[in-house]
Amino acid sequence: MEKDNSRRAFLQKTALAGAGLLLADHMAFASNLLSKPNPTPPFRVRSKGYAARDSSGNLGVYEFERQPVGDNDILIEIKFSGVCHSDIHTVKGEWGDQKYPLVPGHEIAGIVTAVGKNVKKFKVGDHAGVGCMVDSCGSCKSCKDGLQQYCEKGTTMTYGTKSEKYPTGVTQGGYANNLVVTESFAIKIPKNMSLQDAAPLLCAGVTTYSPLMKADVGKGMKVGVAGIGGLGHLAIKIAVSKGAEVYAFTTTNDKVDDIKKFGAKEVIVVDDLSKLDAHKGTLDYMISTIPVSYDLSAYIALVKPNGNYTQVGLPAGNISFNNFAFISSRVNFNGSLIGGIPETQEILDYCAQNKIYPEIQIVDIKDINDVYDKVLQKKARYRYVIDAKTI
Amino acid sequence: MEKDNSRRAFLQKTALAGAGLLLADHMAFASNLLSKPNPTPPFRVRSKGYAARDSSGNLGVYEFERQPVGDNDILIEIKFSGVCHSDIHTVKGEWGDQKYPLVPGHEIAGIVTAVGKNVKKFKVGDHAGVGCMVDSCGSCKSCKDGLQQYCEKGTTMTYGTKSEKYPTGVTQGGYANNLVVTESFAIKIPKNMSLQDAAPLLCAGVTTYSPLMKADVGKGMKVGVAGIGGLGHLAIKIAVSKGAEVYAFTTTNDKVDDIKKFGAKEVIVVDDLSKLDAHKGTLDYMISTIPVSYDLSAYIALVKPNGNYTQVGLPAGNISFNNFAFISSRVNFNGSLIGGIPETQEILDYCAQNKIYPEIQIVDIKDINDVYDKVLQKKARYRYVIDAKTI
Repeated sequence: MEKDNSRRAFLQKTALAGAGLLLADHMAFASNLLSKPNPTPPFRVRSKGYAARDSSGNLGVYEFERQPVGDNDILIEIKFSGVCHSDIHTVKGEWGDQKYPLVPGHEIAGIVTAVGKNVKKFKVGDHAGVGCMVDSCGSCKSCKDGLQQYCEKGTTMTYGTKSEKYPTGVTQGGYANNLVVTESFAIKIPKNMSLQDAAPLLCAGVTTYSPLMKADVGKGMKVGVAGIGGLGHLAIKIAVSKGAEVYAFTTTNDKVDDIKKFGAKEVIVVDDLSKLDAHKGTLDYMISTIPVSYDLSAYIALVKPNGNYTQVGLPAGNISFNNFAFISSRVNFNGSLIGGIPETQEILDYCAQNKIYPEIQIVDIKDINDVYDKVLQKKARYRYVIDAKTI
Repeated sequence: MEKDNSRRAFLQKTALAGAGLLLADHMAFASNLLSKPNPTPPFRVRSKGYAARDSSGNLGVYEFERQPVGDNDILIEIKFSGVCHSDIHTVKGEWGDQKYPLVPGHEIAGIVTAVGKNVKKFKVGDHAGVGCMVDSCGSCKSCKDGLQQYCEKGTTMTYGTKSEKYPTGVTQGGYANNLVVTESFAIKIPKNMSLQDAAPLLCAGVTTYSPLMKADVGKGMKVGVAGIGGLGHLAIKIAVSKGAEVYAFTTTNDKVDDIKKFGAKEVIVVDDLSKLDAHKGTLDYMISTIPVSYDLSAYIALVKPNGNYTQVGLPAGNISFNNFAFISSRVNFNGSLIGGIPETQEILDYCAQNKIYPEIQIVDIKDINDVYDKVLQKKARYRYVIDAKTI
């Protein structure tokens, strides 16, 4: 694929150039703040990002202070940051009231520029990523099981979690030039994967990978994917890589050719629910990334008796169904929330090894408000990724 | 329980008296039709029942012809017929358009008064029951697995299934004085269980028994039952009999004392959804019989991570939820449709053996329209059962 090759070539150049610039840039930030030339942690960190000031959803420049780089922390110079539908839901207050200004972004890939004295997993120059979480209690059963997203004391999400530990009173995300994170919540990005390809795997990737692994998708299975955007297109690629026969359900006719290239056996354009009829009771498993309210009934009917259906899309409003759909289909329904830190590392390694890359469009942060509109208009093909040097 | 004793004494008397009358009555019917005194099958059968003429939901007297008693059929003189919320949904057309006149009723208990020449399971005088189904193809995988409710060619339901095999063009149910059914769809009612107690087990009983058995409820498990009516009160009794600790969720304050007598450990009166908060994440399993549209989100949250939730209630409208409820609870949701014929026989035998009886109120068919109103007003305590001799 020509597009892929040119994207990769671009990356190689920018990564080499960026590594040097980055260290210099960071030194400048730190020295501005502390008036000494070569700081070692702990030290305070200034950051420049794009924040929402209110629930309009419009983002603008915001300079702020991060928490200090502590003994267990790393400082990441952000290179790329994916744009997730969740970012839009959150800054608009659709998932609950927010504290503003708020910098969104939880698909963060960059280069380590400083490490605290206890840090073992990373050294300066390593490629590191951060997904949807930056901290948790570490001692409850969920945390010990590597399911930090279910921390019993409450997970600290990458942005929007209110806490006095953070200088702005709330965690600030990855539409910024840097980020401080405890090393245990940073993911190692394999060197053979570009940072821009890695970014979307940290939320869109693991959110679909986790339930697909739980459903044990593989050879001989017919797997449905409903909603082919940032999450859905990765679900297809992952399921195909595991040997499953994938059926993609989209409402957007002009995605059909792309989706076939991702490896789907069949693409069903659901411009009318009657298009689902021919596939009734045929799937072993379905994952839905549909991010808007919809009637589940017709989709549930696609799955074989005793099969499973996972909804990972999180509409602001309610999903509804007529229970005849469940009693007649005998389908089991569940939801799934991202994945734990070990599983996030696992998908990065898996995708690097199997050359599974997201389809991305690199964008300038100055266009972010247009980009949000395009996401809402289903124009993303298939993930917008912010080039952090434009911040 | 005094009430139970007097009910049982009443039954013993009526059963003895009824058995004699019944045979005489049937002979009269048959002879009216065929002008011979001792008919042997095949012969045609006239029936008197109560039917809806339109979707008003009002029932009135209806005389009609049943299909002939064939070689594999039995004729049952109906003694008692339970009133199920489904009857109301159906005659009002809330579950789809109906062919009228339509006699509802699918909790049918009576005495065998004639058998076809190939019939092996029953003889004249046996106690027999019929639940929600009267026929299926018998040859598909579901039928062979004893899951006739999922017959791939379409199950013939006890009432409302359109077919030219039946003289009125549609199956007619149990609010009537007799019924013809192929012996393989008739359930043997143990002689130590009264016919009036047996009737509600044939739908309300098996509908809750089947998912409870699938969930393997038993000692050490905390089981929730939401919606304590005809189905819910049996779900409590069955789960308690299996050793589970049962939490009952009802919106009706004056059911609390009853529900404790059924064996529930705790009764939560959900006059406000905040009453659920204290029970969040505590249940291993939940069965909901709620027959109206509701927001599932708060109820799903009651179940432990990786627990199961079964919805057996079938509201006319949609059930809805916010997917945050599923992604945070990690609960698996499914529906369940009655049970197969073997499982229906199993619950009859189980309840007879373990002395599990529904709480019933015997009613006169002439009061059926009031009875329907009372069901809708949540006044049933807990199952109305029609005394068929009033028909």
